[in-house]
Amino acid sequence: MPYNPPIAQIMLAMQSAGNLGAQGPGDLGAEDAAAILSEAGRFAAERIAPLNWTGDQHPAKLVDGTVVTPPNFAQTYRDWAAGGWNSLTGPAAHGGQDLPFLLLAACTELWNASCMAFALCPLLTTGAIEAIAAHGSDEIVQRYLPKMISGEWTGTMNLTEPQSGSDLSQLRCKAQRTPDGTYRLRGAKIYITYGAHDWTSNIVHLVLARLDDAPEGTRGISLFLVPKILPDGAQNDLQCQSLERKLGIHGAPTCTMVYGDNGGATGWLIGEENRGLACMFTMMNNARLLVGVQGVALASRATDAAISFAKERRQGRGPDGGSAPTPIIRHPDVKRMLTQMRAKTAAARMLCMATAAAIDASARAPSAEDRKAAAARAALLTPLAKAYATEIAVDVTAAAIQVHGGMGFIEETGVAQYHRDACILPIYEGTNGIQAIDLVSRKLGIAEGRTLAAFLQAARTALAACAGEAAAEVWIADLRQVSDQLLQAPNSALSLAAATPFLRALAALVAAGYLADASRLAQGTKVQHEAETDAAYFIAVELPAAVATAKTAMAGAAVLLAANFGG
Amino acid sequence: MPYNPPIAQIMLAMQSAGNLGAQGPGDLGAEDAAAILSEAGRFAAERIAPLNWTGDQHPAKLVDGTVVTPPNFAQTYRDWAAGGWNSLTGPAAHGGQDLPFLLLAACTELWNASCMAFALCPLLTTGAIEAIAAHGSDEIVQRYLPKMISGEWTGTMNLTEPQSGSDLSQLRCKAQRTPDGTYRLRGAKIYITYGAHDWTSNIVHLVLARLDDAPEGTRGISLFLVPKILPDGAQNDLQCQSLERKLGIHGAPTCTMVYGDNGGATGWLIGEENRGLACMFTMMNNARLLVGVQGVALASRATDAAISFAKERRQGRGPDGGSAPTPIIRHPDVKRMLTQMRAKTAAARMLCMATAAAIDASARAPSAEDRKAAAARAALLTPLAKAYATEIAVDVTAAAIQVHGGMGFIEETGVAQYHRDACILPIYEGTNGIQAIDLVSRKLGIAEGRTLAAFLQAARTALAACAGEAAAEVWIADLRQVSDQLLQAPNSALSLAAATPFLRALAALVAAGYLADASRLAQGTKVQHEAETDAAYFIAVELPAAVATAKTAMAGAAVLLAANFGG
Repeated sequence: MPYNPPIAQIMLAMQSAGNLGAQGPGDLGAEDAAAILSEAGRFAAERIAPLNWTGDQHPAKLVDGTVVTPPNFAQTYRDWAAGGWNSLTGPAAHGGQDLPFLLLAACTELWNASCMAFALCPLLTTGAIEAIAAHGSDEIVQRYLPKMISGEWTGTMNLTEPQSGSDLSQLRCKAQRTPDGTYRLRGAKIYITYGAHDWTSNIVHLVLARLDDAPEGTRGISLFLVPKILPDGAQNDLQCQSLERKLGIHGAPTCTMVYGDNGGATGWLIGEENRGLACMFTMMNNARLLVGVQGVALASRATDAAISFAKERRQGRGPDGGSAPTPIIRHPDVKRMLTQMRAKTAAARMLCMATAAAIDASARAPSAEDRKAAAARAALLTPLAKAYATEIAVDVTAAAIQVHGGMGFIEETGVAQYHRDACILPIYEGTNGIQAIDLVSRKLGIAEGRTLAAFLQAARTALAACAGEAAAEVWIADLRQVSDQLLQAPNSALSLAAATPFLRALAALVAAGYLADASRLAQGTKVQHEAETDAAYFIAVELPAAVATAKTAMAGAAVLLAANFGG
Repeated sequence: MPYNPPIAQIMLAMQSAGNLGAQGPGDLGAEDAAAILSEAGRFAAERIAPLNWTGDQHPAKLVDGTVVTPPNFAQTYRDWAAGGWNSLTGPAAHGGQDLPFLLLAACTELWNASCMAFALCPLLTTGAIEAIAAHGSDEIVQRYLPKMISGEWTGTMNLTEPQSGSDLSQLRCKAQRTPDGTYRLRGAKIYITYGAHDWTSNIVHLVLARLDDAPEGTRGISLFLVPKILPDGAQNDLQCQSLERKLGIHGAPTCTMVYGDNGGATGWLIGEENRGLACMFTMMNNARLLVGVQGVALASRATDAAISFAKERRQGRGPDGGSAPTPIIRHPDVKRMLTQMRAKTAAARMLCMATAAAIDASARAPSAEDRKAAAARAALLTPLAKAYATEIAVDVTAAAIQVHGGMGFIEETGVAQYHRDACILPIYEGTNGIQAIDLVSRKLGIAEGRTLAAFLQAARTALAACAGEAAAEVWIADLRQVSDQLLQAPNSALSLAAATPFLRALAALVAAGYLADASRLAQGTKVQHEAETDAAYFIAVELPAAVATAKTAMAGAAVLLAANFGG
């Protein structure tokens, strides 16, 4: 299935919600961004997209202790890295291009829409680079960053153990100090994406482990860099023990990694002892956004496939009569599905681009005050972007199957793969339930609620211009009523039980505001009609439904907390 | 994964929405029904459930022109048929037990919850039996029904061709009259479930085809019975050419059937020439309900698996504190997912049981007037049951993956299979979009709208007793306002574009009423708390959301009809 990169739609999101070109002199301009995106889109369509079905049908496999990735994955990766695509946001001091995270987010959509199983590896490398850049010693930074930024080496995140998934306090992986200042690690980690592969000569593992004398719980976790190949060229004491057989992303090896089976894997401390979780969150926050972008990518690709199919497939007469079988896109119910899919995708893209822009501003804004405000916006937006974009990715890819009818259920058609791949998104990098808890218990109260209030006010202004003052006021008031209740006791069982419906509603409200703004910005461009339709449909249908869900969140929470499942 | 048949929950749905035991003397009593269900549940749990994962991992395959089903499928089927399970509703005159369709629906849940890929074959045989019983000549009935009712032979439905899916007017399969009164068929059919298998000595295909002199379109379609083995013992001219590789139901062979490659397959006319579509709808309507039941089955099974997992899996501290990792079922957001999954499943089950009871009453009620009214209820309920139950099956099985976290994405866990299997349900036996169109364009107006009005009134009464008069009145008024608009122009593009959200809302309203009634009926039983929670949560959360969706249906329809997707 050919991939048609939605450059104009991504540019619109970057320019409206992402504020591209409005930050002032010295920043990336819209023209440059569009040129880079077009190049990225070309590589994605021509080189990466052909890998998608191949990777699904020829999963990564473990052969004699070595992981063999699907045909052409390794060569494509090397060419991709050679094109400079891995170094977009890396620090210039270490060979990076120091471009905005906004641009990385946009390119991340293109790589993942063309082949998510392929694009996962660079996504994790990006996170590892961030953690090392922020917390690594000079020696570590010098040794690893240049080659990770160039893409010569890749990175991984090692958090999960069988008994320790969302709950990192139960980590058992052990680390011992050695006299030379390095550490010996022993333990097993599961679900390690690209923990082993045949793309590069070295793989840089970031591993959470616990020192013998560490306090219990999350305050006793440290972060270590554990390379596959040691600086002296020797193989470190680590191996990929097995690969998981998964619902989707078959092309990406999901490894069980065993460290220290032969005495101990050599690791270097990143950051301070027992402060590993904070270091890990440096990379995790941006990774959460990028997982949201993966959701946008799959939703966009599936929508595109469904639209193409619906234009070709002829069944029945359209509502305008005629005897010839009509393209099913003319059937109102099919058009409904496609309109909804496209609007949800656009909404998710807006949230992600707004988050990326806030991350940029948190690092680049001229004043400390502005940087702090931007960091607060990024903190509040991240769970919205991750949870909303990944939830709609599951829905939209399922709808794409439905548009294809019986053919959608046949694997060869290819659309089922988007859905299978999407099913991991609400789970990894913090389940969507955890995003909702994060939002309610930690993010709503940022700056005494002023960050939230600013988002509500911005959405109100945008929606008033589009749907009228009265409607906008009602939506805002409904959301504010729930958020006020949540803020009174953000960690209560009631608030936690209401967190997910509230997140959905807040995400829809904020996204609706962005779509309204974008539809104005799009006037006169070739995406004007699409942007107007997205905004109009989302505001007419998705937003009221989401607000209705928020309104029943507290009543529903009270009911479900009283539920008893026996046993 | 062991299967625990939810006999008490099914019995409650049969007794409340299904009106079991209230029809008067001579009907099946609740005690007998419970005894039969318990036996069926035992067979399902002990014999069929072990096939589910096996069938997924060892798909049906085509070997030298013969379809080999997964290990143990054939023997289990023979034992199942020998137990009399295939003959529940068949006419007594031909060896059937003449039991109510309500009981068949209940048992269908058990078979499909334990292994949908296995249970599909009997489901199709049931439909074929109905069509032959209603429209077959005496000769055909005598020759085929006894062996199909006993399960010695199975049946198929052959509708789809590559160019003709939802739109049967494009059928090309040809039939020619012969001097001996039989017909010669030539053509290919796709997506034929159990079109070939190794369970029985004969397979009875019901095939839609077109006579040479038939009018164009759906008025030129005839229905033929085309047996694999002819009455003289010779092999008929038909074969399974290939099997599809599908997202789910791997154990069930989905065949491309080729008829007449060597001169013509011999067929017998069912019903009259050119009236085949009406005959096919005889079986299709009940099959649609049974597909809804498949949705209930998978949703129920997935919910059960998720509840079991959430009781065992320990992560984090619960909202009540404590330092030990808590079973995740105590986390409010996990409890929210489980409560919602269970409530939606119960709602879908109520709709299906109500539909089955209406089908029974349409055939068995003492007076012609009552039979006609029941037929009208069944006609209106069928699209609700099919579309609602299959839509929630997709959602609920996806939520079950989410409850399992990372493990949900690993195939070996088994929960992903429920979701893959469920994805066919909104598509086959008439897509859910077609159900919505059927509802709006043909069913709302039945008996000048009095059937619909009676449902609204019943829901209002039930909900008033549960949520108060005022709330009930608002919900009903909102729905009535939309239905009045739809009824003014049921075939307009606007109505067709609003059909799906309206169907969802009407299904939720009717189901909410049934759940309210059931929670009262359950007082003092062991499912009292569950029934109360299902009703309370559904009415607090699901119903208002569905009504909100209906309220924006017309505005959304206007927006989407104006959408232009280019090309």
